[in-house]
Amino acid sequence: MADQSRPIFCPACHGEGASLSSQSESVQLSVTALTAEVAALFADAGLSSAGAQRIAGALIEAEQQGLKSHGLMHAPVYLERMRKGSVSTHDRAEMVSDHGAVAVLDARHMLGHLAAEQAMALAIEKASRFGIGAVAVRHGFHFGAAGRYVAQAAQAGMVGIAMSNTRPLMPAPGGAEAVVGNNPIAIAIPTADEPMVVVDVAMSEGALGRIRHHHQRGEPIPGNWAVTAEGLPTTSAADAIKGLLLPTGGPKGFALAMAIDMACGLLSGGAVGSEINALYGDTSKPNDCAFLFLALNPQAFGADDLPQRARAQREHIRKARRAPNTAAIRTPGEMKWRTAATQQETVQIDRSTLTALRACAIPIDTLAVSHGGERP
Amino acid sequence: MADQSRPIFCPACHGEGASLSSQSESVQLSVTALTAEVAALFADAGLSSAGAQRIAGALIEAEQQGLKSHGLMHAPVYLERMRKGSVSTHDRAEMVSDHGAVAVLDARHMLGHLAAEQAMALAIEKASRFGIGAVAVRHGFHFGAAGRYVAQAAQAGMVGIAMSNTRPLMPAPGGAEAVVGNNPIAIAIPTADEPMVVVDVAMSEGALGRIRHHHQRGEPIPGNWAVTAEGLPTTSAADAIKGLLLPTGGPKGFALAMAIDMACGLLSGGAVGSEINALYGDTSKPNDCAFLFLALNPQAFGADDLPQRARAQREHIRKARRAPNTAAIRTPGEMKWRTAATQQETVQIDRSTLTALRACAIPIDTLAVSHGGERP
Repeated sequence: MADQSRPIFCPACHGEGASLSSQSESVQLSVTALTAEVAALFADAGLSSAGAQRIAGALIEAEQQGLKSHGLMHAPVYLERMRKGSVSTHDRAEMVSDHGAVAVLDARHMLGHLAAEQAMALAIEKASRFGIGAVAVRHGFHFGAAGRYVAQAAQAGMVGIAMSNTRPLMPAPGGAEAVVGNNPIAIAIPTADEPMVVVDVAMSEGALGRIRHHHQRGEPIPGNWAVTAEGLPTTSAADAIKGLLLPTGGPKGFALAMAIDMACGLLSGGAVGSEINALYGDTSKPNDCAFLFLALNPQAFGADDLPQRARAQREHIRKARRAPNTAAIRTPGEMKWRTAATQQETVQIDRSTLTALRACAIPIDTLAVSHGGERP
Repeated sequence: MADQSRPIFCPACHGEGASLSSQSESVQLSVTALTAEVAALFADAGLSSAGAQRIAGALIEAEQQGLKSHGLMHAPVYLERMRKGSVSTHDRAEMVSDHGAVAVLDARHMLGHLAAEQAMALAIEKASRFGIGAVAVRHGFHFGAAGRYVAQAAQAGMVGIAMSNTRPLMPAPGGAEAVVGNNPIAIAIPTADEPMVVVDVAMSEGALGRIRHHHQRGEPIPGNWAVTAEGLPTTSAADAIKGLLLPTGGPKGFALAMAIDMACGLLSGGAVGSEINALYGDTSKPNDCAFLFLALNPQAFGADDLPQRARAQREHIRKARRAPNTAAIRTPGEMKWRTAATQQETVQIDRSTLTALRACAIPIDTLAVSHGGERP
């Protein structure tokens, strides 16, 4: 295995540590070296060394899985908020209440990834004792991809469910004012082999992170993702960021988003709706979202064969009759698993994300493994 | 209050017990009298008297709430299946396993409404002890609207979640074969006053029951509800019944449907995917679907103010700025609550449903309160 702390040879151009031009669309970086650099930034901002390693690992994992909109592009705002105090330097959430199979944690506005991992670990522990565990989290902050925490449950052999609320981004059907977030729900089912089934769905037709990513790349968005602040159709990412996201499936997505908002915010004693602040708004104000994590223990249900049956059902779906021109049917969680499998030692980072990293003074050029073209 | 066992005066035509012509689109029936007649049919089919009352009440409640596609239109197939033995005459599901906060019930192919009520009652009981309860049900049968069981939880002060799988109706993205059902999920939040928040969402853009209802009424369906068996677009309800439903929100609805299928079927040790049979297929074969019910106790989370906060948030959404031409914003659960409020003593039944009831030898004309026009 190559020394990951130094640039390695690029299989494409056979050059070493090629420097980046402003025309490059992406670059291959060493995961180990990048993790160390990102962790150092968070440690410098006051986070514990262990916490800094975990947040760096989480952000780079999103990049490895191809979830660019949940990855390093957010590092600058996380760090800016830590400097301003709207994200705290705690690395443990505080237990508020613990009653049988359920608990409430106060994340004290710490980095969301760290609070979410802790909460799901507690839900898993409760599920091993009671068959199911539920942990609600208040005073939370952006936790990235919800799929990350249900995968954590599935890796422990549990069916996992995770939800988060966000600040209002979508109108009710017939409304012209944002009243609920595009609140994600994720569900994972442990499978007997990889890839496990990981469903991760935001309740908008498009995701705000993906719209921001399009915006940073100067690309238009599909017409059914958002309306302008006046409720008019748009394909402009900039207008969409100032406007309203549209719910997926119309009233169905709206209804689920409203239920997720209340389940997270009200069970945790945290914020709902307009009590939640924008990640990219006034960065001196806490984001203050809320989470709900559930773990269900198949063994307590007497379902010891669940991973084998889940694998069989997933294979049945993958092998189903295809429509013309469909090369392969993908099941939920498969694509990011395949993407991550190709990016274990190095990770491809977009130019827009590099700009963000340079703003944090990460020495990109010394980490570069190769220059690349467009992401596949 | 009028004697509900007899026809009462019709406020529209001032006549009594008007007889039905084949041109009538709907008719007002006395709820008490209709319940007795429907219960008698189920009792005659071998169900206990208490069970017969409960299933009649459940089917008529769906009609009162305006959920025609979950109501009496299904009575004939339920009764036919009871005669053939593919629906059993049990009125209690059997406990398979009981472990802390979770349990598995075997519904032994009894009427789904009765098994579902029992399962949610057990989940509520567990939530009072452990803070959360989860009950999975195998060998289930069509339970009508999932919203009914989460409302049961919310009436007991709990946040309720209910899911069911169905036989495959929808393809994976890129597929031309049905691999998952339009598996519904429902979530209810207790509120300090009516209407409570009840979300009930099937994972197809349209519901099979609604397509059948359109078919019975000879009406076309919207173009994004289904494709033909060959995967082609259609607005024909008949073609859609023979074809494939489309997931709501495309890959998002598909992914959630797949997770719901596995959560219900695998945790219960029951059927998933193509192991489930069509309600309206070979009626000698058990339907064999599976359910999952969760109840979360706000008090165990320390969220005693949840119903008050839920009401405030619902009101905030209802009063939000409206788009031009929107008279009022409705929150999930509100419409059926309002519809039911107007149909407490009498219920409006569609002509297509009357045809189904006549097939069961219910003496419609003696129950009629008035003839009506189109449903509002």
